[in-house]
Amino acid sequence: MIEVSEVGPRDGLQSIDRIMPLEAKKAWIKAEFEAGVPEIEVGSFVPASLLPQLADTAELVAFAKTLPGLKVAVLVPNLKGAENAVRASVDKITIPLSVSETHSLENVRRTHKQMIDEATAIAGMIAAQPEGERPFFEGGLSTAFGCTLEGPIDEAEILSLAEQLMQAGCDEVGLSDTTGYATPTHVKRLVKAVKDVVGEDKLNGLHLHNTRGVGLANVLAGLEVGITTFDASLGGIGGCPFAPGASGNIVTEDLVYMLDSMGLETGVNLEKLLDVRKIVSAALPGEPLYGFVPDAGLPKGYPDGYVE
Amino acid sequence: MIEVSEVGPRDGLQSIDRIMPLEAKKAWIKAEFEAGVPEIEVGSFVPASLLPQLADTAELVAFAKTLPGLKVAVLVPNLKGAENAVRASVDKITIPLSVSETHSLENVRRTHKQMIDEATAIAGMIAAQPEGERPFFEGGLSTAFGCTLEGPIDEAEILSLAEQLMQAGCDEVGLSDTTGYATPTHVKRLVKAVKDVVGEDKLNGLHLHNTRGVGLANVLAGLEVGITTFDASLGGIGGCPFAPGASGNIVTEDLVYMLDSMGLETGVNLEKLLDVRKIVSAALPGEPLYGFVPDAGLPKGYPDGYVE
Repeated sequence: MIEVSEVGPRDGLQSIDRIMPLEAKKAWIKAEFEAGVPEIEVGSFVPASLLPQLADTAELVAFAKTLPGLKVAVLVPNLKGAENAVRASVDKITIPLSVSETHSLENVRRTHKQMIDEATAIAGMIAAQPEGERPFFEGGLSTAFGCTLEGPIDEAEILSLAEQLMQAGCDEVGLSDTTGYATPTHVKRLVKAVKDVVGEDKLNGLHLHNTRGVGLANVLAGLEVGITTFDASLGGIGGCPFAPGASGNIVTEDLVYMLDSMGLETGVNLEKLLDVRKIVSAALPGEPLYGFVPDAGLPKGYPDGYVE
Repeated sequence: MIEVSEVGPRDGLQSIDRIMPLEAKKAWIKAEFEAGVPEIEVGSFVPASLLPQLADTAELVAFAKTLPGLKVAVLVPNLKGAENAVRASVDKITIPLSVSETHSLENVRRTHKQMIDEATAIAGMIAAQPEGERPFFEGGLSTAFGCTLEGPIDEAEILSLAEQLMQAGCDEVGLSDTTGYATPTHVKRLVKAVKDVVGEDKLNGLHLHNTRGVGLANVLAGLEVGITTFDASLGGIGGCPFAPGASGNIVTEDLVYMLDSMGLETGVNLEKLLDVRKIVSAALPGEPLYGFVPDAGLPKGYPDGYVE
C-alpha cells in the first residue's frame, strides 16, 4: 500500500493570490476522499493576516473529520498553531523545519534553534493530551535537497536536524524538496542517510515538486528506498511563495497513474480522481491546472492489460 | 557513458506543419554537436510528398557528416529509403516496425510480413556494400508499450517480431514508446523479455515520450535494466502524426539534466545545450517548446554540490 497525501488545499492554495471559497474547498476535499485519497492536508494554522487563503482551516478540519477514515493533516509553524490544531482534533501535525537557515529566517523568521524549541514545546503539549487525542507529529525537513537562497545544504547539518527533531519528540521526520532540486540518486542517498540516523521506520514520507521535470522519477527512486507516502497536489498547483522560482508540486493524478500502472495499491480510483479537477477549476476559473494524464487521457482500454 | 540521441530534427520536425529552413536545421545540428550530443537523427528518407518537412534529409546528412565524430542517423521506411541513406553515407539506419499491425498499416501501409521482408532486403543491400561503408542497422519496435488504435499488444507478438528483425539481419533492436503508454515496471519487464530473446547486448536503446508525465521515470527504469541510449527531442517537440493523442518526446534538456545530476557521463554540456533552444525558437517562431529545466533554470550553484 502506497499512501498518497493530497496537499493541494494547503500547499496549492497558499501559493495563489485568490481565496477559494470554503464551500468549494469542502467539495474538493469530499470528492478526493470519495475517490479514495487516504490523507489530505487541509490547511495550515497560521495567522490569517499572513495567509488569508488558509484562514478557514479550523472549519475545514471540522468538516474533514466528518469523513470516516480520512486522515486529516495540517501544517503548523509554531506552538500556537499546534494548539489550534489539537483543539480542532486533527490527525496529523507537521512542523516544517527548513534545513537552510536562511530560508527558515525568510519563511518563518526563526533560527534552527528556535524551530527545534517550538518542536519540543509542541511535542510536550501533545503528550499532555489525553490518550487517544494525540495527533501524529511529523517534523518536515524542508529545502532538504538544496535551497534557492543558499544552494546545496551540508548533509551533516540535515542529519543533525533530523536527529534533533526526533529528540524534540517528533513521531517521524519527512523530507521536502521545497525547491524542486531533488534528483533520483540524491533522493536515494539522502533517504538512506536520514533513515540511518532516525531509524528505518521513522522516515516514510517525501514531499516532491516537479519543478525540473524529475518529480515522478524521484518518486520511483523513493519507492526503491522504502518510502511509502508521497505528497502531491491536484492539478499540480502549489509551491512555496518564499523560495523564488520553486513551484509545482507533483501532480496527484500523474502520481496515482504511475503507481497504479506499476501495480502498487493506493486505494485511489483514478477516474474519480480525474473528475475532481472539475471542482477545482470551477472554483478557480482561469487558474492553470497541470498534469499530463489529465491532458492526454488514459491509455486505450486502461487498466486492462496495462497494470503490472 | 550514457548516449543521448537527438531525434528532434526528424521526429520533432515531422510532426509540425511548418518546414524549418535547411540553414536553420544545419545551425541546430551543429550547435547540438558542439554541445557534445554524440548522435543526431537528422531526418528520414521518405518521399517528399509524404513528409515535405524532411525533404532535405540528403543535404543534412552530407552536412552532418562534416562534423567530426558525430553519429549521423536516419529513419527509413523501406529498401528505397535505405538505399538513399547508404548513398548519403549515414552511420545508422533505423527501420520502424510497429508491433501494432493496425498502426503499421496506417503509418506505412504495410503488414508485419511486408516490413520484415523490407528489413531482410535492407540487410542484404547493406551487406553488399564494401567493408567500412556499411551503416549500423537497427530495427525499431514502435508502439511497443501499447497502441492508441489497438490498445495493449501481446508480448509474445513483440518478442516474435524482435526475433524476426534480428533474423532479417538487423544489428540491434530498439523499443519505441510511440504512444506514451510506457510505465516504469512495463519498461523493465519488456526490456528484460526482449533482451532474453535477442541477446543482452542487442537491445540498448529506448525511444520514450513524456505524454503521461512518466518519461524520465521510464528512463530511470531503463537505466536499471541496462539501457545505454535514450532518444530525446530538444524542446520536446515531436510525436507521431498517425497515432492520435501521442505527442511529446522526452525533452533532451531535462534528460541531460537528470543523467548529469545522477553523475552519469553523457559528454553533453548542459549550458550549451540549453542555448540551442534559441536557434530552434528563432527558426520556428511561435512554436511551443517544452522542458522543465529550461523554464525553471538550473539549481543555484549547479553543478557544484549537486552532481552525485
